[in-house]
Amino acid sequence: MATVAALKDHGGTLETGLAARLAVRRKALSGATSGLAPGYVQANLAILPRTLAQDFLQFCQRNPKPCPLIGVSAAGDWRIPALGEDLDIRTDLPRYRVWRHGEIVDEPSDIVKYWRDDLVGFAIGCSFSFEQALLDDGIELRHMTCDCTVPMYRTSVETHPAGPFRGPLVVSMRPMKPADAIRAVQITTRFPSVHGAPVHLGKPELIGIKDINKPDWGDAVPVHDDELPVFWACGVTPQSVIMAVKPDFCITHYPGSMLVTDRRNTEFAIM
Amino acid sequence: MATVAALKDHGGTLETGLAARLAVRRKALSGATSGLAPGYVQANLAILPRTLAQDFLQFCQRNPKPCPLIGVSAAGDWRIPALGEDLDIRTDLPRYRVWRHGEIVDEPSDIVKYWRDDLVGFAIGCSFSFEQALLDDGIELRHMTCDCTVPMYRTSVETHPAGPFRGPLVVSMRPMKPADAIRAVQITTRFPSVHGAPVHLGKPELIGIKDINKPDWGDAVPVHDDELPVFWACGVTPQSVIMAVKPDFCITHYPGSMLVTDRRNTEFAIM
Repeated sequence: MATVAALKDHGGTLETGLAARLAVRRKALSGATSGLAPGYVQANLAILPRTLAQDFLQFCQRNPKPCPLIGVSAAGDWRIPALGEDLDIRTDLPRYRVWRHGEIVDEPSDIVKYWRDDLVGFAIGCSFSFEQALLDDGIELRHMTCDCTVPMYRTSVETHPAGPFRGPLVVSMRPMKPADAIRAVQITTRFPSVHGAPVHLGKPELIGIKDINKPDWGDAVPVHDDELPVFWACGVTPQSVIMAVKPDFCITHYPGSMLVTDRRNTEFAIM
Repeated sequence: MATVAALKDHGGTLETGLAARLAVRRKALSGATSGLAPGYVQANLAILPRTLAQDFLQFCQRNPKPCPLIGVSAAGDWRIPALGEDLDIRTDLPRYRVWRHGEIVDEPSDIVKYWRDDLVGFAIGCSFSFEQALLDDGIELRHMTCDCTVPMYRTSVETHPAGPFRGPLVVSMRPMKPADAIRAVQITTRFPSVHGAPVHLGKPELIGIKDINKPDWGDAVPVHDDELPVFWACGVTPQSVIMAVKPDFCITHYPGSMLVTDRRNTEFAIM
């Protein structure tokens, strides 16, 4: 079993979503999917029993910025054809988290043995797509410069509840010079299905962030005097909302181990 | 001679650019053109001798954000057919300023007697168009709430020079809540020919503005604690650049007395 970097060093061809998924499925690689299949959309994954699925679907529809749903499986079906012809959500992520009553009970490399006829898979867009568009435009992403995880914060902004699902919006933060922040609004507006435009910028206190240097998830990054913190709705929102419900049973991707799809980032651009 | 408001009170039909121009031409109204022919593009006007026109044209092309050129007349020609079939830049603005060597020598209601065979007219997009789009989206414009002129500031940002034309970028400022500022970037991005997206937001000191309460033109407006100042490139930039050159002779519109065109604001939206 190899990491992405190691496999690439050895000439592995992981240049498409399908190739990446097949490599993961045959357990030829583990770890984070960042950098796999450049240009292809990666997604957050949440798998819930059917009893909760309808409410969660409604939660996503009411909160499209933190929960941009790009694919849903039929109950009991491990395929999401809209995201890839040969795609199996039980085997195609490098690592999963299995939860019972809000506690992690396993972190397996596939979930075949956990699969049930009543499970529904939700694929939710992730920031990798818009980050690539920002990098392509020459905008620095501080957490990449610092080689760390993007800082994320619980805010005082409430999501729109649906059934038992409710809780605060979680945001990620990228510091930028004002002109870059304006450009970033323009660029990420093109990608509504991967969080879209920022939800806030400047003045973190207005959304309940007391100390920008103390993120609730990820790592703190420096915000220079000539920069504004720019905040995007974050895919950790649905995860944190699910965990608050403490479902009898659910499965999510392991942090950083995403579902790699056959859809290209550019397909998700609205113009 | 009546003001726009008075004429409207008496049932005047000033609902198209042409109707507004004809009313101005027959001196049926004076004063500011704001509110005339709703939905139609209004423009800043600068008229220069041919000896300066080529350099000024290049200056506009190098600085499209402060100087979005939407029409240019042929030398000696008072028409700009691209902006309106029956359009005469000598008579169709309520008031003009005539300058010699950088000094105002007259503020007439038409410039027929000043017209020369070597004069070239430049119509430059103005913020009225994008302000209408912001208002239509429900965004408050503070200077309208305060019933005053938008505050404008000389910045430390230099324009790209062309021939004798050079000088600082002038910006207008509208305070907004962060979410409105993000929305305003999206909306005004659609209108590149009327100044387009903001050039800066937050942190006025980064563009050389020492005191936001002391604009160089227009009136100060309050910026609340939960707001960011949002800055757009301003059509006063070309005027201030022209004045610095102190041409032997030139003509501009009188502040607020714009050229009303037959083009609709929506025609200028790029998407």
